[in-house]
Amino acid sequence: MLSTRRGVIETPVFMPVGTAGTVKATRFEELESPDLDAKVILGNTYHLWLRPGVETIKACGGLHRFIGWDRALLTDSGGFQVWSLGDLRKISEEGTEFRSHVDGSLRFLSPEVSMEVQAALGSDIVMVFDECAPGDATHEETEKSVGLTARWARRSREAFNRLQFEVADTGRTEAEGLSGAQALFGIVQGAGHLNLRRDSLRQTIDIGFDGYAIGGLSVGEEKSTMFEVIGDIAPQMPKDHPRYLMGVGTPQDLVEAVARGVDMFDCVLPTRNGRTGQAFTSQGKLNIKNARWTQDTRPLDESCGCLVCRRHTRAYIRHLYLAGEMLASILLTHHNLAFFLDTMRGVRQSIRSGNFPKFRQEFTERLSANGE
Amino acid sequence: MLSTRRGVIETPVFMPVGTAGTVKATRFEELESPDLDAKVILGNTYHLWLRPGVETIKACGGLHRFIGWDRALLTDSGGFQVWSLGDLRKISEEGTEFRSHVDGSLRFLSPEVSMEVQAALGSDIVMVFDECAPGDATHEETEKSVGLTARWARRSREAFNRLQFEVADTGRTEAEGLSGAQALFGIVQGAGHLNLRRDSLRQTIDIGFDGYAIGGLSVGEEKSTMFEVIGDIAPQMPKDHPRYLMGVGTPQDLVEAVARGVDMFDCVLPTRNGRTGQAFTSQGKLNIKNARWTQDTRPLDESCGCLVCRRHTRAYIRHLYLAGEMLASILLTHHNLAFFLDTMRGVRQSIRSGNFPKFRQEFTERLSANGE
Repeated sequence: MLSTRRGVIETPVFMPVGTAGTVKATRFEELESPDLDAKVILGNTYHLWLRPGVETIKACGGLHRFIGWDRALLTDSGGFQVWSLGDLRKISEEGTEFRSHVDGSLRFLSPEVSMEVQAALGSDIVMVFDECAPGDATHEETEKSVGLTARWARRSREAFNRLQFEVADTGRTEAEGLSGAQALFGIVQGAGHLNLRRDSLRQTIDIGFDGYAIGGLSVGEEKSTMFEVIGDIAPQMPKDHPRYLMGVGTPQDLVEAVARGVDMFDCVLPTRNGRTGQAFTSQGKLNIKNARWTQDTRPLDESCGCLVCRRHTRAYIRHLYLAGEMLASILLTHHNLAFFLDTMRGVRQSIRSGNFPKFRQEFTERLSANGE
Repeated sequence: MLSTRRGVIETPVFMPVGTAGTVKATRFEELESPDLDAKVILGNTYHLWLRPGVETIKACGGLHRFIGWDRALLTDSGGFQVWSLGDLRKISEEGTEFRSHVDGSLRFLSPEVSMEVQAALGSDIVMVFDECAPGDATHEETEKSVGLTARWARRSREAFNRLQFEVADTGRTEAEGLSGAQALFGIVQGAGHLNLRRDSLRQTIDIGFDGYAIGGLSVGEEKSTMFEVIGDIAPQMPKDHPRYLMGVGTPQDLVEAVARGVDMFDCVLPTRNGRTGQAFTSQGKLNIKNARWTQDTRPLDESCGCLVCRRHTRAYIRHLYLAGEMLASILLTHHNLAFFLDTMRGVRQSIRSGNFPKFRQEFTERLSANGE
């Protein structure tokens, strides 16, 4: 269960990514529809901070009101995004200096700035400002990174606490008080080094958060390393708090991570791959560009009951894609989100009825039978 | 009233344009929703013939099934599109030769080919293959063009009749017989030369069609010329058949053309301008890129009750547009279609209650007050 000020969300839950305040190619009405029924979506602090900027979002009443979404919102801290900039950013003890991809201006992001921005956005779940290490980072590099992440986590916690008690000009116009209104999640780092992952987990728990996340996976390491880390760390995470695996992954990854104890996921795969012509199906991935679908009147996934599969054929969606029509992205994204969210619904249902092991086995077998 | 084999459609009616088998940036569920409730949409024979091609659409059961749309479809003949290619096409008595914009192949479109393609598409309303004259064509040029259009109209009629009686492999899988299943509309040409327009109308009526269209307007002529032609020709068109003004125009143009007797419209303005950041509103056009909307929490149109105006602000849509997000096009297109379709609803209602002159006056005054 994930408790937010907007109600309790059943877990495990998949959160569609709405980087710039929109889940790409998707209307909010669809996200709310029974077909998708997304309970929480993610916004990227980095992107929203640079454009449209905090002043605009504050003036429009916070992120929920700005984008027109009443359900729960999680914002990341910007830590991963600025880390991803590579040579374009300079990391110091204080924070990270980088150039905006929007206007080239020099910007500085730190635990304090990130907490201020996320308070102004008014998201329901705030993430600490962390530092990521590359998938192939040495033990020494990773140890440094984990240390910095712990110090930044403490500073994030302190800044967050201050802000929650300040009924200041944060752009939130809800009647509720700010204290305790937002939740703050800590992030465990440590690349593929299990002892450092455990150190990071201990340090994060010591500070104390409303939920705990595993960060720094799916950043170039082997998939076996990723599952080794999840399998080791997730079971050690506090049982009475949500466990969130950041930025992962395929539907199989999700099911496998649930088996290891993860409650929350976000990933750009359903939306990004939808825009490049890839559908996720119960039989594996389907490339809509493939000429074999030219006159194929089957839906993307014959086992799927989403609006797109009920109405449209592979032949039509392939035509739309080749013609450069926006509707191709819209339909593929909708189906992919439906598939991810429906997989999570199936997972939750099987857990409730005590059949998750069977669900997991059948899900995996079906995909393996198709070479995935 | 417009009678099709898919039921009777109340007129005047606006038809959103679905060039390549999709009303751009719009899902069919939205077109069917009470918000838009489009009764008939348009497909472009030229585009669909070149891609995905007739074989694919036939294999998928005709255009309705291919795109997943059960309501009425009108297809144009391709005449206007090949004419628009300018130097890239060669017009002869037989038809028009041109190079495909999709694969560069040499193609030939004639009345017979156009009728065959439209029979295979299975559209409810078929348009004759016509020839357009530029807005500034001389009397002599236009006279030749009108003559050719009349000969092509007769050939279209004959080819259409043959096809309607052939229960051949046309890709239509409906149980109904083909005879009389489709309707065929004739097109009046003649640029801005009223005597030639009248000749063209007479020749078209002589052949006899299920409906009559005014083509070759909004192609570079003065707006006063356009209304002179409509005002002269529309009242002379058969009263017991629908009168269709092709490819026109702004909401004001529509209201003014209704006042002159027009029943049917199609236009790319709501969709195309939506994608370039322009909203049509009861107060005139609104450019969403304008910096004055940066923190404006009003809807696109304060008098509009569409889903977009009920949910989203100018500030948000502007942000989406500047961030290059697809949702900007999706929302602006939805609102624009809602505005066009709602204007037509208002027109129909005012006609029913005998208040059209008042509606027209108020509509025009509101726009003039804002400099349009």
